[in-house]
Amino acid sequence: MRVNYEKWSLRKRYFWLRIWEDYEIGYLDRELLPLLVLLNRDRDIYTTSSCSGRIVVVDGNVPWIREEASVVFKSHIPVTTVDLDFVFRETPHRSYWLVVTGPIIHFSTTSLRKALKLLKRARTAGFKHSGVMHVSSTRGVFIELITGVYMTQLLRIQDNVLVSLSDINKVIFTFNKALIEGKWRLQKLYEVFRKYLPETPDPIIETELNSREIRLVKLTPIDIFYEMCGDLCRTA
Amino acid sequence: MRVNYEKWSLRKRYFWLRIWEDYEIGYLDRELLPLLVLLNRDRDIYTTSSCSGRIVVVDGNVPWIREEASVVFKSHIPVTTVDLDFVFRETPHRSYWLVVTGPIIHFSTTSLRKALKLLKRARTAGFKHSGVMHVSSTRGVFIELITGVYMTQLLRIQDNVLVSLSDINKVIFTFNKALIEGKWRLQKLYEVFRKYLPETPDPIIETELNSREIRLVKLTPIDIFYEMCGDLCRTA
Repeated sequence: MRVNYEKWSLRKRYFWLRIWEDYEIGYLDRELLPLLVLLNRDRDIYTTSSCSGRIVVVDGNVPWIREEASVVFKSHIPVTTVDLDFVFRETPHRSYWLVVTGPIIHFSTTSLRKALKLLKRARTAGFKHSGVMHVSSTRGVFIELITGVYMTQLLRIQDNVLVSLSDINKVIFTFNKALIEGKWRLQKLYEVFRKYLPETPDPIIETELNSREIRLVKLTPIDIFYEMCGDLCRTA
Repeated sequence: MRVNYEKWSLRKRYFWLRIWEDYEIGYLDRELLPLLVLLNRDRDIYTTSSCSGRIVVVDGNVPWIREEASVVFKSHIPVTTVDLDFVFRETPHRSYWLVVTGPIIHFSTTSLRKALKLLKRARTAGFKHSGVMHVSSTRGVFIELITGVYMTQLLRIQDNVLVSLSDINKVIFTFNKALIEGKWRLQKLYEVFRKYLPETPDPIIETELNSREIRLVKLTPIDIFYEMCGDLCRTA
C-alpha cells in the first residue's frame, strides 16, 4: 500500500499543531517534548497521542480502562503516601487499583521500511512489545512503541482495604521505582533515535522550531523529569 | 520485502511438527490447539510459541520476567488458596508477585496484506495491542496478538506479607475472573477467524490432520478449558 503523501502531510500538520496547543494548556507530558520534536523533525514521521509513563488509581472491577472504570488519581511523577490518603478514607464505587505504566509512543511513517527500522532500534531501548498497528494510505504506517513496564495493585474492594496503611509505603516505593525505570527507557529511546534522526529534515518543522525557541526542546527527557520532581525522582 | 516462500515453508514445517511434539509431552496449552490448527490450515500462515493465558507467581523485584526473576508457580486454570499456601510459608528471594496474563498468539504470514487483515479481525475480538513485530524474507511477516488482560499483585516482600491470609481469596477471585475473561477472548478470536480461515487450504496440513484424528481439534478453546477444570472455571 502506498501512502498518499499530500493527505498524510495534512495529518502531520494537524498533530504537530496539537502538540503546541497541548503544551500551552499544560496537557502535554513535558518529558515527551524532546522525543516528539525529534521524531517530527524527520520529513517522513509524525507523532500522535503518547504518554511518558504514569501512576494512576483506577476505580473499577479491573485495572484496565473501560466504560465502567474511571481514573480517580493521576501522576506523571513519583507519588507519596499523602497522595493516596483518599484510598483509606473514601469508599470506591467498585475497587481501587494502583497502576503504573511505562511510556507509550505513537507515530506514523510514510513507509514500512522506515517503520521497521525504527521498531528495531526501539527494541534495543527496551520497548519490547512494539509493533505496526495499522497501515492506510492517508494515515500512513502507524506504530506503537511500548515497554513491559506495567504493574497493578488491588488496594481496596468496597470497604475491604487489602493493603494496610502501614504497608502502603512499600507498595508506593516499588511503583515509583517502576515509574522511574519507565522514564529511563524513554531517555534511552531518545538517545537511540537521536543518533539516527532526522534522516531527511522536514523544512517546515525546522523553520517553526527556530521561531518558537522552546527551552525544553534543548533538554533530554530525563533532564525535564528531574526538573519536574527534583530529589523525589532521584532517590525513589 | 518479498517473502522467500521456500525457506518460509521450511519454518512452517518445523513449527508445525513442534506443535505435536509439545502436545505429546504435555507442554502445549491444550486450549490453544483448535486455534493453532485453524491458522496453520491456511497455506500462508504458520504459528510459533503462544500462550492461552495463565496465572503465575514470580519471585523478583518486578513482576516482569528478567534474569534475576523466576516463575515459582504456574497455572493455566483458575487457582485456589491452597495453591498459594507457599506464599505465606516460604520467604521469597526478592518478592512474590501474583500475575495473570491473557492469551498471546504469535504467527507469521507470507504477506503484509494478509497480516493486516488478520490484525484488524483480531482487534474486534479484543486483542487490542496487537501488531506486526518484524518482517523478514525467511521468517515472513511476524505478528503478535495480545489483549490488555493483565494484572499483578505484590503479595510479599521478603518477610513482609502485604496481603493477609484472610484477604488472599478475594485477590484470587479477581485474578481467576481475569484469567477466564482471557480464555473467552481466545474463544472469540477462534470464532472470528473460523469464519474466514483457511483462505487457501494448505494441502500438506489437511492430509496430516486427517491421519492424526485428534479429538481436541474438533472442540473449541472454551470447550477444552471447561474439560480441563470443570466447575472451577464456570463459577469463578
